Amino acid sequence: MEKEHDFIPERQKWKRQLFRIIFKADTKLGKIFDMLLLGLILISTFIVMMESVEVFDAKLHRTFVVLEIIITLIFTVEYVLRILTIRNKKAYILSFFGVIDFLAILPFYLSLFIPITKYFLILRMLRMLRVFRIFNLLDFMNDGSFIVTALKNSSRKIYIFLLFLMIFSVIVGSMMFMVEGHREGFESIPQSIYWAVVTVTTVGYGDVSPSTPLGKFLSVLLMLAGYSIIAVPTGIVTAEMRAKRQELGKVCNRCGNADIDDDARYCKICGEKVV
Amino acid sequence: MEKEHDFIPERQKWKRQLFRIIFKADTKLGKIFDMLLLGLILISTFIVMMESVEVFDAKLHRTFVVLEIIITLIFTVEYVLRILTIRNKKAYILSFFGVIDFLAILPFYLSLFIPITKYFLILRMLRMLRVFRIFNLLDFMNDGSFIVTALKNSSRKIYIFLLFLMIFSVIVGSMMFMVEGHREGFESIPQSIYWAVVTVTTVGYGDVSPSTPLGKFLSVLLMLAGYSIIAVPTGIVTAEMRAKRQELGKVCNRCGNADIDDDARYCKICGEKVV
Amino acid sequence: MEKEHDFIPERQKWKRQLFRIIFKADTKLGKIFDMLLLGLILISTFIVMMESVEVFDAKLHRTFVVLEIIITLIFTVEYVLRILTIRNKKAYILSFFGVIDFLAILPFYLSLFIPITKYFLILRMLRMLRVFRIFNLLDFMNDGSFIVTALKNSSRKIYIFLLFLMIFSVIVGSMMFMVEGHREGFESIPQSIYWAVVTVTTVGYGDVSPSTPLGKFLSVLLMLAGYSIIAVPTGIVTAEMRAKRQELGKVCNRCGNADIDDDARYCKICGEKVV
Amino acid sequence: MEKEHDFIPERQKWKRQLFRIIFKADTKLGKIFDMLLLGLILISTFIVMMESVEVFDAKLHRTFVVLEIIITLIFTVEYVLRILTIRNKKAYILSFFGVIDFLAILPFYLSLFIPITKYFLILRMLRMLRVFRIFNLLDFMNDGSFIVTALKNSSRKIYIFLLFLMIFSVIVGSMMFMVEGHREGFESIPQSIYWAVVTVTTVGYGDVSPSTPLGKFLSVLLMLAGYSIIAVPTGIVTAEMRAKRQELGKVCNRCGNADIDDDARYCKICGEKVV
Repeated sequence: MEKEHDFIPERQKWKRQLFRIIFKADTKLGKIFDMLLLGLILISTFIVMMESVEVFDAKLHRTFVVLEIIITLIFTVEYVLRILTIRNKKAYILSFFGVIDFLAILPFYLSLFIPITKYFLILRMLRMLRVFRIFNLLDFMNDGSFIVTALKNSSRKIYIFLLFLMIFSVIVGSMMFMVEGHREGFESIPQSIYWAVVTVTTVGYGDVSPSTPLGKFLSVLLMLAGYSIIAVPTGIVTAEMRAKRQELGKVCNRCGNADIDDDARYCKICGEKVV
Repeated sequence: MEKEHDFIPERQKWKRQLFRIIFKADTKLGKIFDMLLLGLILISTFIVMMESVEVFDAKLHRTFVVLEIIITLIFTVEYVLRILTIRNKKAYILSFFGVIDFLAILPFYLSLFIPITKYFLILRMLRMLRVFRIFNLLDFMNDGSFIVTALKNSSRKIYIFLLFLMIFSVIVGSMMFMVEGHREGFESIPQSIYWAVVTVTTVGYGDVSPSTPLGKFLSVLLMLAGYSIIAVPTGIVTAEMRAKRQELGKVCNRCGNADIDDDARYCKICGEKVV
Repeated sequence: MEKEHDFIPERQKWKRQLFRIIFKADTKLGKIFDMLLLGLILISTFIVMMESVEVFDAKLHRTFVVLEIIITLIFTVEYVLRILTIRNKKAYILSFFGVIDFLAILPFYLSLFIPITKYFLILRMLRMLRVFRIFNLLDFMNDGSFIVTALKNSSRKIYIFLLFLMIFSVIVGSMMFMVEGHREGFESIPQSIYWAVVTVTTVGYGDVSPSTPLGKFLSVLLMLAGYSIIAVPTGIVTAEMRAKRQELGKVCNRCGNADIDDDARYCKICGEKVV
Repeated sequence: MEKEHDFIPERQKWKRQLFRIIFKADTKLGKIFDMLLLGLILISTFIVMMESVEVFDAKLHRTFVVLEIIITLIFTVEYVLRILTIRNKKAYILSFFGVIDFLAILPFYLSLFIPITKYFLILRMLRMLRVFRIFNLLDFMNDGSFIVTALKNSSRKIYIFLLFLMIFSVIVGSMMFMVEGHREGFESIPQSIYWAVVTVTTVGYGDVSPSTPLGKFLSVLLMLAGYSIIAVPTGIVTAEMRAKRQELGKVCNRCGNADIDDDARYCKICGEKVV
C-alpha cells in the first residue's frame, strides 16, 4: 500500500528517515514510534469510554478534556507528517488506513461544533489494526487475512442469505402482527419484524414475547427455523475456509499437482517428495 | 419456466414485444419495467408497514389508502397482461412466481370484505425474488440457487432432525411440567413445551424460566443438549454444501476425471492441463 | 430385531398371522393396524397435553379420563398380543421398542396410586418412532439412522466436551459468586453455576444477569467464550457426518479403491468406470 | 510428564512403591488410591457448593467446616508425598497438574486470613482431569486430547477473530450509546458495549434492550451480523478438526503415502493393501 520512495534527493534524507519511522516497523525508532502510538490509541479509547460514565466524568472532566486535546494534537501532527513524508499522497489519503487515520482526529474538531460527535473518537480503535506490525508476527497477519479473505469470498452468498432472511422475517413478523393483534410488543409491523429477527437469530431478548397460544405456536416454529438455518452461513464459511486452506497448500515441483494434503510426504500423482 | 412463443403470427407482434418487456430483462424497456416494478414493490411494502404504526396511520391514512389502490391496480393490470402475453397460461398461473404474483394482489380485494387480511399484502415482498434479474448478475442467481439447492437436498434430513427435536421437546416439557408443578410459566404441558423449545434452540426469551432448584438443574441439562445438537443441522448442511460445491466442479477433457479441486492446475489422473 | 418364527405348527397359524399384522407393515391389515396405532398415539398425546390445561380439563375432564382408559386398554391388549405372538419374548421385552411399549401403558396404572405420574403417558410419543414403517419410506429410515449414527459415533467426544464445559461452568460460576457477592440471582454457587450455563450456551434467559461492572466484564468474557466454543460440538459432528457419508460411498469393482467421491465417473486409481 | 525413578537404592523401595501408588494407576492399590481421591474431590466440591447456600450453611456449617479441614489435610499430606516421592521435584511443582494440586489446598489456608478466598477451593474440580486415568480408557484420553489439540491449533485464529469482534463491539456499542442517548441500559459506553456483546453473541439476556426505533433497527443489523459471523469460529475449528483427523490417519508401508482415508482398503498410490 505505502511504497517507499524510489529515489530521494540528499536534502530530503530526513523525509526518507521520517517516512521509515512512521510507516515502517523495521527500525528501532520505528518500533518505538509504533509502541507509543498503540499506547496513545489505548489511552484515548479508554478516556472516551470513561468520559461517557457520569461518575467518572463528574470527577475528572477537566483531566479527560486536557488529555484528549493533547492526544488529538499528537495524532494531527502525525497525520500531517504521514502526508508530508509519503510520495503518493492521494493514494494514502484514500487508502483504508488513510481514511482511518483521518477519522481518528476528525470527530474531535467536529465536536467543537456538534458535541455528541465526540464519541466517534472511538473509531480510533480501528488504528489498532495498523499497529499489528509491531509484534512482527507474520503468522498473526496471515491468520487475520485468512479470516478476512474467507469472509470476503463468501460475502456474496451471505448477503443473499441475509436477504432471504430479511424477507422471511418481514413476512413472519407481519403474520405475527395479525395473530398477536396489537398486544404489547406487537403494536406495529416494524415492531413485529424486530421480534421476528430477535427470535430467528436465537438472540431472544425477551423484551417482546408472544402471549397468545397461537402466537407461541408460531414462535416455536420460528425458533426451530432459526435453529436450523443458522447452518447456512456456517456451511458457507466452512466450505470457503476449507477451499482457502487448500489454496494455500503446496504444489509438487515435478508434476505440478496442486492437490497436496497438509500431511502428505509424497506427491500422490508422481511420487516426488514434497516439502 | 416461462418459455417464449415458438411462432407468433404477425398481428400478435405487440404481444410478443410486451411479453419480452414484462417477462425478460434483456431489452432496455424490459429493464426499465423491472426497475419500476421493484420500486413499486418496495414502496408498497413500506406503506403496509407504516400503515400498521398508529402514529403514522393517524396522520396519513388517506394517502396510504390511495397509494395502495393505485399500486394494486397497476399490479392487477400487470398480472392480467402476464396471463395474456404468455403462451402456456396454466403453467404460469400454477408456477411459483405465478402464485406469488396472484398473492400480491389478492389480499387487497379480500380486505374489502375482511379488513385484517390487508396485511397479507406484505407477501408482495416475495416478488422481489423475481426482480433479481434486473441486476443481470448471474453470480447472484447462482449463489442464491446454491443455497436453495443445498437446503432442499438436506431438507429431508433436517425434517427428521426437527421431528426428533419435537418429540424430545414434548417429553422434556412434560417432565418439566411435573417438576415445576404449576408454577408461573409452567401452568400446562403445552406451555412447558413452549419453554422447552425456547431453551433447546438457545433463544431464551426469559418470559418463562425455572424457579425450583430441580427445575434449574433440568434446564441446565436441556441447555447443554441444545448447545450440542445445534451441531446436527450444521453438520448436515455443511456436508451438503461441500458435495454441491464439488458437483459444480470442472471435468477433465481427456480422461473424464470429475474430481478436480478448485486450485488444481493439472488433472491428477492423466496430467492434462485443466482450465 | 423381531425375527419371524422359523417353523410354526398348523394350529398356531393365527399366531403367525397376528404376528405379521402387529409387527410388520407389509400386509394390508398390517398397514391398517399401524395407521390405527399412529392415530391412537397422536390422540392420546393430545389428550394428555389438553388435560394439563386447566380451562380444558375443567370442561372435559370426564371425556379425557374415559378416552384415556379406552386407549390404555387397547395398548395393553396390544402389548400382551405382542408378547404372545413373538417367539423370543425376552428379547422383545428388553428391546428398545419393547421397553417403550411397556412405558406407554405403565404410567396409567401407576397413576391410580400416584396421580402425578399420569403425565408420563407422554412417553407414548416415542412409539411414533416405531410407526415410521407405515410410510414405507426407506430413505427416511436411512436419513434417520444417518443422524443417529453420526451422533452415536461422536457421542464420546461430545461427552468429554460437556465434561470440560461443566468443570468450566462450575469454576466460572464460583468466581462470579465471589464477584457479584450475594446479589440477586447470585445468592449461592449452584445458582451462579446456573447463570454460567445459561450464559455460555448463549441461551441467556435474563432471569439472572450481572449488575456490577466487574460482573458484566466477566460476563462479556464468558459470552465470547461460549460464542467460540460452540464450534467444538459442531466441528465434531460435521467431521463425523463427512466420514459417515464417505463410508456409505461406492467401491471400485476392479481395484477395490474405496475413495470414490460422489461425483466421480471413473475410479481415480485404475480408471475403471464406476456406477 | 512424571517419569519413574531410573534407579532407586534398596532402602528407598517404599518411596518407589508409594510413587507408583500415587502417580500411577496400574496397580490395585494405585487404582484404589485414585478412586478415593476422585471421591474426595467430588465430596469437597459438593461441600463448597452447599456451603454457599444459606439454608444449608445455617444448618450444617459445623459439619461442612470439619469435613473441609479433614479433606484439606488429606490433600496436603498427599501433595507433600507427591513431592517427596517424585525425583524431578521442580518439574512436578511447575507442571500443570503440580500447580493444580497446589491450588487445591492453598485457598483453605488463605481463607484463614481472607475468608472470601475459601470459594477458590472449587478449583479442586480441576483435579478431576488427573483422575481420568482410573477408567483406564485410552480412547477417552485420546478424544480429550483431540479436542484440546484442535482448539490449541486454532487458538491463534480464534484470538484474532475475538479481537476483531471486540473492536467491532466497542464501535457498535459507542454508536448505540449515541443513538439511544442515555436511555436505561445505555447510560455509558462500557454499558453499551456490554449490550453489544450480549447481542452479537446471540446470548440476549434482555436486561438491556433498545427502546427507540433507530436503536431497534441497529439491533436488528447487529443480530444478523452475530448470526452470520458465528460461522467464523465454527469454520476455523471444523477445518482444524478435519485436518487433525487426517493427521491421525494411517500411512502406507510401501510408498509412504499418508493420505489414506478412514474407509480405504488399498493405498490409492501404489495399490498396497493397508490395515
